[in-house]
This record gives sequence, structure tokens and C-alpha cells, in this order.
Amino acid sequence: MYVFGKNVAKELLNNNKKINKVFLAENFKDEQIINMLKEKNVPIVYEDKFSLDKMEKGNHQGIILNIEDYKYKDEKDMLDNLPDNPFIVILDHLEDPHNFGAIIRTCEAAGVDYIIIPKDRSVSITSTVMKTSVGALDNVNIVLSTNLNNIINKLKSKGVWVVGTDMQDSVPYTEIDYKIPTALVIGSEGFGMSNLVKKNCDFIARIPMFGKINSLNASVAAGIMIYEVIKQRTR
Amino acid sequence: MYVFGKNVAKELLNNNKKINKVFLAENFKDEQIINMLKEKNVPIVYEDKFSLDKMEKGNHQGIILNIEDYKYKDEKDMLDNLPDNPFIVILDHLEDPHNFGAIIRTCEAAGVDYIIIPKDRSVSITSTVMKTSVGALDNVNIVLSTNLNNIINKLKSKGVWVVGTDMQDSVPYTEIDYKIPTALVIGSEGFGMSNLVKKNCDFIARIPMFGKINSLNASVAAGIMIYEVIKQRTR
Repeated sequence: MYVFGKNVAKELLNNNKKINKVFLAENFKDEQIINMLKEKNVPIVYEDKFSLDKMEKGNHQGIILNIEDYKYKDEKDMLDNLPDNPFIVILDHLEDPHNFGAIIRTCEAAGVDYIIIPKDRSVSITSTVMKTSVGALDNVNIVLSTNLNNIINKLKSKGVWVVGTDMQDSVPYTEIDYKIPTALVIGSEGFGMSNLVKKNCDFIARIPMFGKINSLNASVAAGIMIYEVIKQRTR
Repeated sequence: MYVFGKNVAKELLNNNKKINKVFLAENFKDEQIINMLKEKNVPIVYEDKFSLDKMEKGNHQGIILNIEDYKYKDEKDMLDNLPDNPFIVILDHLEDPHNFGAIIRTCEAAGVDYIIIPKDRSVSITSTVMKTSVGALDNVNIVLSTNLNNIINKLKSKGVWVVGTDMQDSVPYTEIDYKIPTALVIGSEGFGMSNLVKKNCDFIARIPMFGKINSLNASVAAGIMIYEVIKQRTR
């Protein structure tokens, strides 16, 4: 996969990540990065800005790196090796990479066991996610699922209770017991959870709101829910 | 002030906001927006893409609008008219407009009475903030302060307890009583609270973290804290 930007480059270099190749703009001047690349014998290819712009639409800052694809955890491995009282976060078709990065950070800090994302129409691991998750990516387990409802059913058969989030037909999120094996489902930014996933949940939780607009950013909503689980479990 | 983008334009038009003038790219084609602009007699100036790019570095999507500057609430008015049991959020030099927008949404949903931001080296109301706050901006009171410590002292003299956030010298955030008049101070993304502000706080709260990286996005941390306040107050 290709990732870009100086911060991402520094993080990869500082953590001794394998970099297959790096493409630098002809006028790239960050001596610290160049020295580290040389020290680690990373093959450097200089390109004109136009070629880099064609490779990568984002703000690449003159540096694009080719690294190994992110290694998702295996679904079967997860199901066969669930910890004692698992805490899992399922992202139902989240789309914004900034939100995904922020949720990865929250899950890392909270010690969430697994993050499950669907394969289609969803965020995946990109430069923006790497950047906004500021290193937390290495310390979380992310499972890529071909069928969210299927994996939800398998989790339920293993004794995991599935808690969705929605304003309708729901109870306040603080009234649910999260001390038991729990999977939280966070809906997408615009549309919430898909109907089938919602039907499949054991509980539906709502975060109470008192304004006129009443819409929380998806990563903020996830943070509030995740830390309610942590609070109950560490009480 | 100048704001840009189709979503921002639609929101302004749908909410009958005063638009002084709009600059459209020569090839701007969104008929819905053009019809609404004409209906509301907004003066339209067509410009070539190059001129628009010069006016606005962000992704303007061919539409830049000149609107009235955002009207901050007056500091003295706030202090003279504090509600019974105020809940105030102070943003100590937050820099990321996406975080600011997400925090505005959270404050709107939670019914926070006032948001205080410093005048210098801080976020202010921009197109990105307008976009990420998805309309919540109209339903919150934002005070622009020339001196955060000064306003914190004045709040304290009015009986408001000031709770900062930091990992050092702090207590778990859930152990603080927020049922009394409360101002939460959220630090900047990279550096937390400034030292003087920290010294000025009555309590310092920490969000417990169990990972290796242990860093929460500023808007997520704010959301977790704000909803702990709400939870205690609505119990």
C-alpha cells in the first residue's frame, strides 16, 4: 500500500517499519527523513511533483512511501481465541478516515480487544487513518469482515451481547450492563446502523441529547459509549 | 467573513442566513443552489477558477460566500447572566477546526451554556468549523476571551468550579462532582493545558487509559468528559 506525508514517514521510520520504497519530490528537503531513509537502506526514487501528484491526490508533502499492506486479524482466529470477558467494537460502515483514526486511538487507550469493520463501503487503513491514529494502529486488532451480520451472530453464539446505538426504540446508554461480554456497534456518520444489524442487536442504546440539532460526531459518540463500558468494568 | 463549499451554502440558504455576496466558478452547475441564491436575491459574481483558488485555499467546490462575521457572545454579558447551575466548556488553545466543530456539536447536544475560546493562537469560526458543526453553531453561545486566566478567575469568583484535564497530578474524571457550577477546560491537541491555566484549576481530571500510545483525540476526550457531567446532572 502507499502512504504519504512527513509525519507518517517519521512514524514508520521511528518504529522500524519495513518500507519497500520511497518516492521523493526532486526538491524534498527534510534532512532528518532523508538521513533516516539512507540509514535504513530504503530505496529512494526521485520524481517530479507532477508525477507524485498523479500517484497520490492527498497532501503528500513530497514524500510517498510504499509499505506492506496492513495486516488485518483473521475472523476465525478472533472467534476461536476470544479473551475471557471480551470488549469488541464494530464499525457499521463508517466512512470518514478521521473518525476511524480517532476511534482507533480511543480503542487503544481503552484496551478494546477487537475492532471489526466491514469489507465493503467502509473505511480502510489509509494514510489519513495512520496519521490520525498517531501510532495506535500497531496496538489494536482490526478484523475485516465480509458479512457483519454473520460475524455478529457468531459472536452472539459465543456469549457476546451486542449493543447498537440509535435514537429510536432505545434505552439510555448508561442503563445497560457492559460488565458482561460486549460488542458495541457504532453506526455510520450519516445513516446510523443498517436495519439488519439493528435487528440483530440485543440492546439498542441512545446517548441523551438536549439541543435542537442533536447530532454527535461518530468518533465522539463512540468515545462516550466506549468509556461508559470502561467505567462500569473498572468500578 | 468568507466561507465556502456546497454544503455550507445549502445550510446558510436553508436557514435564511444573510449572504452579502456569492462568488461562483464560471462552470458552477448546482441548479438547486443557483435557484435558491436567485430566489433570495443574493448578488452573484462569476469568477474563473484561478481567481477563486486565490481567494480560498480550501476545497471551495466553485462557491465562495461572503457572510456576516460570526457574532461571539460578550464576556461581560455572560458573567452578568450566568444561569442557575452553569455548565461551561473552555477550550485552551485548541487548533484543529475539525475538533472544534465536533466539540460544538457535542456542546449543543449536551446543552452546554457557554463555550469559551481564547482570541489568540486558537481555532476560530471558519468554513471547516461551520461544516463539521453541521448547524449546531447557531444553538451554542461562544465567548471569545482575550485572557483565559482572567475569565477563569472571574468565573471562580461567581462560584463556578474549574476542572482541567491532564494525566499528571490528577484524579479519575468520574470521581469529581459536576453537579455544582462547573467549567471544564479542554487542552490543545498536542500540548494539553497551559501551565498557568492548569494552576488555576480547582480540580484536575484524567481519563484512565490502558494502552501503549494512550492519546485521545481532543474532541473525543471532550465528549467523554462532557457526558460524564450530563450523566451526573440527569441522574
